[in-house]
Amino acid sequence: MSSSTVSPAPTLDDVRAAATRLAGHILRTPLLESPALNRAIGGRLLVKAECLQRTGSFKFRGAFNRLSLIEPADRARGVVAFSSGNHAQGVAAAAQLLGVPAVIIMPEDAPRLKIANTRGYGAEVVLYDRVRESREAIGEALARDRGLTLVRPYDDAGVIAGQGTVGLEIAEQAAALGTKLDAVLVTCSGGGLVSGCALALKQHDPETAIYTAEPDRFDDAARSLAAGERVANATASGSICDALMAATPGEITFPIMRRLLAGGVSASDDQVRAAMVAAFLHLKLVVEPGGAAALAAVLAGRFDARGKTVAVVCSGGNVDPQFFAETLSAAA
Amino acid sequence: MSSSTVSPAPTLDDVRAAATRLAGHILRTPLLESPALNRAIGGRLLVKAECLQRTGSFKFRGAFNRLSLIEPADRARGVVAFSSGNHAQGVAAAAQLLGVPAVIIMPEDAPRLKIANTRGYGAEVVLYDRVRESREAIGEALARDRGLTLVRPYDDAGVIAGQGTVGLEIAEQAAALGTKLDAVLVTCSGGGLVSGCALALKQHDPETAIYTAEPDRFDDAARSLAAGERVANATASGSICDALMAATPGEITFPIMRRLLAGGVSASDDQVRAAMVAAFLHLKLVVEPGGAAALAAVLAGRFDARGKTVAVVCSGGNVDPQFFAETLSAAA
Repeated sequence: MSSSTVSPAPTLDDVRAAATRLAGHILRTPLLESPALNRAIGGRLLVKAECLQRTGSFKFRGAFNRLSLIEPADRARGVVAFSSGNHAQGVAAAAQLLGVPAVIIMPEDAPRLKIANTRGYGAEVVLYDRVRESREAIGEALARDRGLTLVRPYDDAGVIAGQGTVGLEIAEQAAALGTKLDAVLVTCSGGGLVSGCALALKQHDPETAIYTAEPDRFDDAARSLAAGERVANATASGSICDALMAATPGEITFPIMRRLLAGGVSASDDQVRAAMVAAFLHLKLVVEPGGAAALAAVLAGRFDARGKTVAVVCSGGNVDPQFFAETLSAAA
Repeated sequence: MSSSTVSPAPTLDDVRAAATRLAGHILRTPLLESPALNRAIGGRLLVKAECLQRTGSFKFRGAFNRLSLIEPADRARGVVAFSSGNHAQGVAAAAQLLGVPAVIIMPEDAPRLKIANTRGYGAEVVLYDRVRESREAIGEALARDRGLTLVRPYDDAGVIAGQGTVGLEIAEQAAALGTKLDAVLVTCSGGGLVSGCALALKQHDPETAIYTAEPDRFDDAARSLAAGERVANATASGSICDALMAATPGEITFPIMRRLLAGGVSASDDQVRAAMVAAFLHLKLVVEPGGAAALAAVLAGRFDARGKTVAVVCSGGNVDPQFFAETLSAAA
């Protein structure tokens, strides 16, 4: 694989540089508020609507920043990524904008819509058989044969710095509202988004407490933070939050999380469904299950927000229409 | 009723003054874009996501501006409005923020959720029997007895100027993207939103063509513009676009529309449903039927956007969850 041009551990300066690089290429997503949700939690709730971002999730930020950092000669050869979800679309869209060839390795049983979307951004999609083939082996062979640069989903300083621009925006938007943030809850899989956000938010206000939000039984980040070391989930499937299924925090993300985070919370599938319905009713947002975990934890009282001003990131909106329809119908 | 402090015909200066008054109280809603929708129309489509506005529609802008213009003595007595929908919530929320007592006259068969939302903003809701009672008579009696100021939904210069801030923002956001707008399509009921937007947009670029968007068979604005005089719809019910059912353009709005608009287009209920699904899939927005009429007209080719840069306003998102679920399911 080609060598990286980024340092292994990102800093606040990397996040600021990413913000400059991303300006004009990303949507500055709004920080939304609803009186009904404020009443429901007995505090003030600010919702970072990152599901409105290009490609329907925050992943575009990290991908665009990472690709911008690749040396021109390596860029011309292209990039490769493994993903069946939001990272695939983020890398494909960033590559298209930057004129970089992209190969995305996806399981052949991935949703047709996600495969079509990834191809729609001009990427070459290589399908593999989840049972018989190794995506790592396919990726390594492609990278070696074609000189492609691997774009990891979270354990990469350039990716983390890009995701951290979400935190910079939250800090600036809260300041514009004249409010201090008591806490920020960020959905967490491998920890790229939460560690990047923490770099930005803690600099802005060291008193803001930052938490991960995960699905119940997939709360590896919360348990790792409590244990002081990386621990893994006992199971690899069984949550509606398909975007939050990483087994354990990353090697690069976890030291940042351990240094800057206050802890982690989790939410049940039913609480996540209720949060998706609340976002529909009160914010007019389409949020996917994994994207709603932080909102769910606050609305369900897993995080006590009474008397506090709390921001949550709704990190993605790529949800199957039939699943969304069933979620709304069941609640009606 | 109390006398108004606004001139009958609003000007661009009124829209600019409204923008100053509204700053910090409204959300500057994003102008969204999707590569998939651009490909679908063969042009560039910019979507003003006004469904994300406070109260779930643009109506808050006009209500807040109008209430801000009421003299202090009249303000203390309060305001009254008739509406079963978005105007009710807009007036109630603006009144609450400004500390103005509000009475909203709603039909007793209005959706429970809308009545509850209106009460949730602190308004006194007076229910009436659509068949046996006149809301005008109830409103006039209340206004006379209590000295309330009537807040009309569109035929009011202060309301029109407030809605026009949507157009100011579109012009500024398009300029920030470095693009010129060939056309802007705006959902239209009584014409408050489109006439206010036209004041702002035509000043910014006289070459931008502005169109109304309405449901088929409720295209009174399009037909009035073609005829050069106000004509009415033949029927008063029978569209899923409950927010776009005014019988004819307003007395104050129509002269502005006639002076500044290029014409009007309409969309069928099925085209509106398809636009709601497209907004769900590609923009992650919840748009109500009436709010999706302009998007529908462009996506369905009722307005030929090939080779053009076109902005549409998605004006509201207050849609019943069961209806939304059925719309998604039918398309899946």
